[in-house]
Amino acid sequence: MKFSSKVQKCGLSPMRKFHPYAVTAEAKGRKIYHLNIGQPDIETPKAYFEAVRHFDLPVLEYAPSPGMPVLIDAIRHYYDKLDMHFDAGDILITNGGSEALQIAFNCILDDGDEILIPEPFYPNYNTMVCTCGASIHPIPTSPHEGYRYADRARIEAEINEHTRAIVCTNPGNPTGVVLTPEEMRMLVDVAKEHGLFIIGDEAYREFVYAGEPLQSMGQFADAAENVIVIDTVSKRFSACGARIGCLITRNRELMAHAMKYAQCRLSVPTLDQVASAALYDVGPEYFAAVREEYKRRRDTVMQKLQAIPGVICECPKGAFYVMAHLPVDDADTFQRWLLEEFQDNGDTVMFAPGEPFYATPGRGRSEIRIAYVLKQEDLERAMDLLALGIRAYNAR
Amino acid sequence: MKFSSKVQKCGLSPMRKFHPYAVTAEAKGRKIYHLNIGQPDIETPKAYFEAVRHFDLPVLEYAPSPGMPVLIDAIRHYYDKLDMHFDAGDILITNGGSEALQIAFNCILDDGDEILIPEPFYPNYNTMVCTCGASIHPIPTSPHEGYRYADRARIEAEINEHTRAIVCTNPGNPTGVVLTPEEMRMLVDVAKEHGLFIIGDEAYREFVYAGEPLQSMGQFADAAENVIVIDTVSKRFSACGARIGCLITRNRELMAHAMKYAQCRLSVPTLDQVASAALYDVGPEYFAAVREEYKRRRDTVMQKLQAIPGVICECPKGAFYVMAHLPVDDADTFQRWLLEEFQDNGDTVMFAPGEPFYATPGRGRSEIRIAYVLKQEDLERAMDLLALGIRAYNAR
Repeated sequence: MKFSSKVQKCGLSPMRKFHPYAVTAEAKGRKIYHLNIGQPDIETPKAYFEAVRHFDLPVLEYAPSPGMPVLIDAIRHYYDKLDMHFDAGDILITNGGSEALQIAFNCILDDGDEILIPEPFYPNYNTMVCTCGASIHPIPTSPHEGYRYADRARIEAEINEHTRAIVCTNPGNPTGVVLTPEEMRMLVDVAKEHGLFIIGDEAYREFVYAGEPLQSMGQFADAAENVIVIDTVSKRFSACGARIGCLITRNRELMAHAMKYAQCRLSVPTLDQVASAALYDVGPEYFAAVREEYKRRRDTVMQKLQAIPGVICECPKGAFYVMAHLPVDDADTFQRWLLEEFQDNGDTVMFAPGEPFYATPGRGRSEIRIAYVLKQEDLERAMDLLALGIRAYNAR
Repeated sequence: MKFSSKVQKCGLSPMRKFHPYAVTAEAKGRKIYHLNIGQPDIETPKAYFEAVRHFDLPVLEYAPSPGMPVLIDAIRHYYDKLDMHFDAGDILITNGGSEALQIAFNCILDDGDEILIPEPFYPNYNTMVCTCGASIHPIPTSPHEGYRYADRARIEAEINEHTRAIVCTNPGNPTGVVLTPEEMRMLVDVAKEHGLFIIGDEAYREFVYAGEPLQSMGQFADAAENVIVIDTVSKRFSACGARIGCLITRNRELMAHAMKYAQCRLSVPTLDQVASAALYDVGPEYFAAVREEYKRRRDTVMQKLQAIPGVICECPKGAFYVMAHLPVDDADTFQRWLLEEFQDNGDTVMFAPGEPFYATPGRGRSEIRIAYVLKQEDLERAMDLLALGIRAYNAR
């Protein structure tokens, strides 16, 4: 049977591809500390489950294709408090941020088109972009520079006639890079000058650790035609399993096209929308506590990493990931070895090897992404296992 | 700004495009009887809401990308009872049947490819196929023949070097055509002989009204490489808002490709999967009662339709739709007129105009799709409004 040439260019998720090895290791009695997936252990606010329990309509009907008004209103109100004002028609509710990204790419990309993304980047962008027949054109960064990318000359050097958009994951996954207001302004200006979309993937907006005010590409109302904001409740409220996100844009033509895809898949789950609307009632104390918790974890990870000889990394400013260069030949081989050969008191550790976060062949081979989503004690043990593993791996 | 040439070829859902006119009509105080959307009014089994209420994990986590084992097992058990046996790895849980279709098309279609679908067909196939750069090649049918299409010569005449799959919505939406076991066998044989996929979109499997045993393309285990089954809880359990479906295939290579898309969108909502698993505990008496109810409605619609001079339609054998040729010049204009100009005691009616159900230009202009998803009394009134509307429209 013949398969699509596009899907043949795609790969499995690098965060999930070691799953079979993990299953085998667990069958052998290993305990695995997971630093590989961005699944927070923070409790989902009770408001979610309360709302679900109180749903009492007899028929679980389709929601409207653009999303339920109760959720759209909650999101508008959230942005109002950040002094960003959107019409209901500027917000399309989606199956997580993932679908918002896929719809945006489907609306703007043709075969042969390119989008600029600083590498390392969230690897699922690859499949999303490839599905459209387009490709990722990477903006180069370096672990020695803390993966910063917001330099006008560096970005403009990569723009060509195929470029359609700049994607900024801000705060960054996997790098934790947080753009300054000046850098965001510059990026928006570059997009405007070159007639490009600028896509702010802002799943981690709340997770910034230097007291910065919350930022969004949505604040640039002067770039109404260019800006697309991707948002989600997944990380904000530790509600990844709700799969509720949204696409936000003031570009009416884009939204009209997006609605075609929204209608084609009919609607987003009704209960999850009702319950996600309730999440937006949590107060600032919720975010303050969560932020404090992640900051403590970040500091633990950094302290442990800096004690490992040969590791190169800068302290991330946001999200809950650290990208680090390790003193190993190949992080992929190292990960497999950790699952198949290594153990310390029956324990081992998983991270996400770095290569799939890059578009440039050969880059990222000695890098890894660590998701600091475990509680303090487990995190310390996981990082100690990493240090022990590196030493044992290099002493084979 | 430049948009994708593919999205520009797509349109809005014909079932939803009159929504703005309906809003205006309602603002004028009109009561609208909705025959346009396949949203059943049957109560969702209580088991769904019970399961949701009993979910008590503190963190709403991502589910596994292929789906939650509890739901996969429930679906396997459902098929076991129909004497179709699938491995857990043959079933991929999706965001409704819609995502299952989109993933299947993305896996098998390249630019310029074609899929064979009898017309009239479910119009959202257009957007799904167009997204892949492919197109629908229609198998012609006629209202005078009750829209039947399963004729070997007719189908083989449409196969060419671009053909990749035959899609059978069975029972049919919008036509209500139900394939006989012999016709299904023939279709599978044609697919095998020509190296094509055969996609059975079987959302309406339970809704057959002549006492037939439940059928599925999945029963042809000898065509393991060819058969793709699309399934969903939406209509089966009147749980459209759950957005839980699945893609079923024994083709391992196809499933490996499908998993790339599944991982790229991370997972399907956790609560809806848990609750949908509980739906599969309802017994055969549930389906018997629902089937009886729809059959009564179908008979009402047919009786009313046959009393309108100039209507051409045959009694549908399954699903909950009737496709009918009306004595009007243009069903689209007629629908708009019904919303803008017509009323009877303040009431009017909506259906889905037929043209978007066709790929062949100009076909279906005088046809409509009626979804008989209203309770008896409302259905009678809706059909009377249709008859009154036709008379008034043609007497303008």
